[in-house]
Amino acid sequence: MPMMPVTDSMFLLAESREHPMHVGGLQLFELPDGAGPDWVNDTYRELLSQVDIRSLFRRRPRGPVSSLGQWSWTNDDELDLEYHVRLSALPTPGRVRELLELTSRWHGTLLDRHRPLWEAHMIEGLEGNRFASYTKVHHALLDGVSAMRLLERSLSTDPAADLSAPWTQPMRKGATEKPGADAPGRGLNMLRQALSDVASAPAAFVRAANQFFGDQAATLPFTAPKSMLNVPITGARRFAAQSWSLSRIKAVGKGAGATVNDIMLAMCAGALRQYMIDMNALPDTPLVSAVPVSLRQDDSASGNAVGLILCNLATTTEDPAQRLAEIKASMSRGKRVYDGMSQMQILAMSAIPMVPLALAPIPGALQIVPRGFNVLISNVPGPRQPLYFNGARLLGTYPVSIPYDGQALNITVTSYMDNLDFGLTGCRRSVPHLQRLLAHLETALADLEKAVLGPAG
Amino acid sequence: MPMMPVTDSMFLLAESREHPMHVGGLQLFELPDGAGPDWVNDTYRELLSQVDIRSLFRRRPRGPVSSLGQWSWTNDDELDLEYHVRLSALPTPGRVRELLELTSRWHGTLLDRHRPLWEAHMIEGLEGNRFASYTKVHHALLDGVSAMRLLERSLSTDPAADLSAPWTQPMRKGATEKPGADAPGRGLNMLRQALSDVASAPAAFVRAANQFFGDQAATLPFTAPKSMLNVPITGARRFAAQSWSLSRIKAVGKGAGATVNDIMLAMCAGALRQYMIDMNALPDTPLVSAVPVSLRQDDSASGNAVGLILCNLATTTEDPAQRLAEIKASMSRGKRVYDGMSQMQILAMSAIPMVPLALAPIPGALQIVPRGFNVLISNVPGPRQPLYFNGARLLGTYPVSIPYDGQALNITVTSYMDNLDFGLTGCRRSVPHLQRLLAHLETALADLEKAVLGPAG
Repeated sequence: MPMMPVTDSMFLLAESREHPMHVGGLQLFELPDGAGPDWVNDTYRELLSQVDIRSLFRRRPRGPVSSLGQWSWTNDDELDLEYHVRLSALPTPGRVRELLELTSRWHGTLLDRHRPLWEAHMIEGLEGNRFASYTKVHHALLDGVSAMRLLERSLSTDPAADLSAPWTQPMRKGATEKPGADAPGRGLNMLRQALSDVASAPAAFVRAANQFFGDQAATLPFTAPKSMLNVPITGARRFAAQSWSLSRIKAVGKGAGATVNDIMLAMCAGALRQYMIDMNALPDTPLVSAVPVSLRQDDSASGNAVGLILCNLATTTEDPAQRLAEIKASMSRGKRVYDGMSQMQILAMSAIPMVPLALAPIPGALQIVPRGFNVLISNVPGPRQPLYFNGARLLGTYPVSIPYDGQALNITVTSYMDNLDFGLTGCRRSVPHLQRLLAHLETALADLEKAVLGPAG
Repeated sequence: MPMMPVTDSMFLLAESREHPMHVGGLQLFELPDGAGPDWVNDTYRELLSQVDIRSLFRRRPRGPVSSLGQWSWTNDDELDLEYHVRLSALPTPGRVRELLELTSRWHGTLLDRHRPLWEAHMIEGLEGNRFASYTKVHHALLDGVSAMRLLERSLSTDPAADLSAPWTQPMRKGATEKPGADAPGRGLNMLRQALSDVASAPAAFVRAANQFFGDQAATLPFTAPKSMLNVPITGARRFAAQSWSLSRIKAVGKGAGATVNDIMLAMCAGALRQYMIDMNALPDTPLVSAVPVSLRQDDSASGNAVGLILCNLATTTEDPAQRLAEIKASMSRGKRVYDGMSQMQILAMSAIPMVPLALAPIPGALQIVPRGFNVLISNVPGPRQPLYFNGARLLGTYPVSIPYDGQALNITVTSYMDNLDFGLTGCRRSVPHLQRLLAHLETALADLEKAVLGPAG
């Protein structure tokens, strides 16, 4: 998750049964050539022997919560690695469907605060000579992007490389051993200040927002329509994931003069439109998506330096090519707003549409605070070259993110080799039949191909 | 769990991450003759088709918690059976050890309060031509004994009987359809009143307790030693389970003139003694166990009508036969105290040693309130004849219970056919290597056999 207008402690304070505040990653692997039936189990045992655990993964929160900000970090001196690292199996018939069901369950349960806030699962029993891993880390420890970077760094471009566990990895290349270098949430400090400035004057911040985003004509903050996605949520989750070929997406982009990100957004827009039409729940005005834009200056894995663009998803437009054109235009306007701004200004502006989320825990706030946007859609660049885990080739890597009150669905996309890997995380009750969005995403891409490249495309 | 000196709502109010308030049952089955690889999956699908769900399993709590007792029950009109009933699998090598590990994890996660408070798992991948089920029900809905009765009633003495799901079962034979017959917690009403009487005068209740239990010389309430089991707990659980042959236990009982319950307690005493010696944590004075005694007048499955005996476990006595004699004498004294008392009086007295548990959520209370006892050990009679689930024979049934702050370990035992099935549920952090108690239980029984029946016994 790119940003949250709250302090690290607030990730803990805001957490409840309905709002687990952890991010996850689901990864699919191909078993290495000649791997026997015990390969996953043997690899799991080997992981358990990697006991040189980085301080980040030894930290646990120390309460009690007597007032805001009273949480601190302490080190767990008797870390029970078998508790954190688990071997699991899929029930028959062991399809991706069973894997997504299990991931949904895991993602809906809270982490134990008496221990360092993470869990890692090795999963056997996946059909097609594959296995999977699911990793879960509290947002107070790492944001989603940093968590994915860390997972990737435990993999190797060399199939013959030794096994290496994410919890033994340094937080960032080169600068790891600097004191505090892997302190969670450093990047939030500025945002925290910026938010407290705007949020301290509720009436003023809406005025300020409309002024700041004045250029984004079609997508002013707080004009997003009411939708089925913007409701209070429950604790159970549904997770769906699938990969699409980047060459298909790039071909459409080339044909339409649009970026990969534009096509990805157009796929989401088409899928959400069809899903809501089926549910008889499509709003009369276009859905607005919040799209984080990375402001990272280096390859640092920690921090949350991200700006936010509000994108008109044009969900009321029937024609796929026209819808794409509107999305593309909206993203261009959004990017122009940031031109020439300092990082601090970008952060302050980006915080504004998030304010309703920060207010969501207050009963009734969802009814009275206008919606900043309808759905958060992130695209996080991933590795281009094939990666290996103990000799097993990574097939796909899917982010599992955090729905909030008022944001019942999250779409996070990452790239790997020639694929875009989509991860859709929703509240199990508010977003029924979430997995149908996968079929709609495929239809949306096929419709774009037809519209942009012609029937033979 | 036989009793708790709190109202139904308080089971919800007292619940936290550290103190999940659900009871569970783990059941092992033998696959029927000729069952194919899809048998468990097929049975699971068939279970999902049993949608005529009793009202008890449709109820969900309605908050919010604004003050004590404000919870009410409401019906879930869109019950999502696939959420509650789950198919799971064991990782390799699929031993009972992996099953206990998975059960431990499930038992440590909270139920979703936005839904009816129960979950049922079918588990495939268990070695030895077996499968298992794990069921979890919130204590606010059913106490442990009632939950086990309900599970048993969904089984049949007839191997050819049709599959029948626990959630389609009536709550009690005969009287089911009476309005309110399956209302949770009816049996608690008297206890609630009794407790509020004794607890309203903190100083007086200790005096009253000592007077009431005057006859139980060695086991006065609030004289239990400080021990490693009587500490604040965390949310993660360890569950261990094993069966022992009733004929072995009865033979020792016959030789020593003791009951099955006495021998069961002596096994626990021997095991706890050895476990604490190994941990260098055996108290200088004997551990005191609370042993619930059923006061049921009929076979009603609801209600919590149970009296409590405090038993001196004689853990400082080295000789197994002498230890058994002390336990037997303590239980006899305990039972005599109740002679001629009304059910109301028994309930009021039984509530007294539980008071520290009710106070445990208050910070610091564990340090200042004397311990009523060190460990709760329950023996719940179970079915004598072989039972079947969709043609699969039940091999064992193990209660999974609730540790509390100050009660880090719970031992609940049930009988089935010619076995006593032990279920040990502990806090994963406070009771390390819980599974070692299984080996110590076997050693304790073997020591008793040697001491009472001689080396040839």
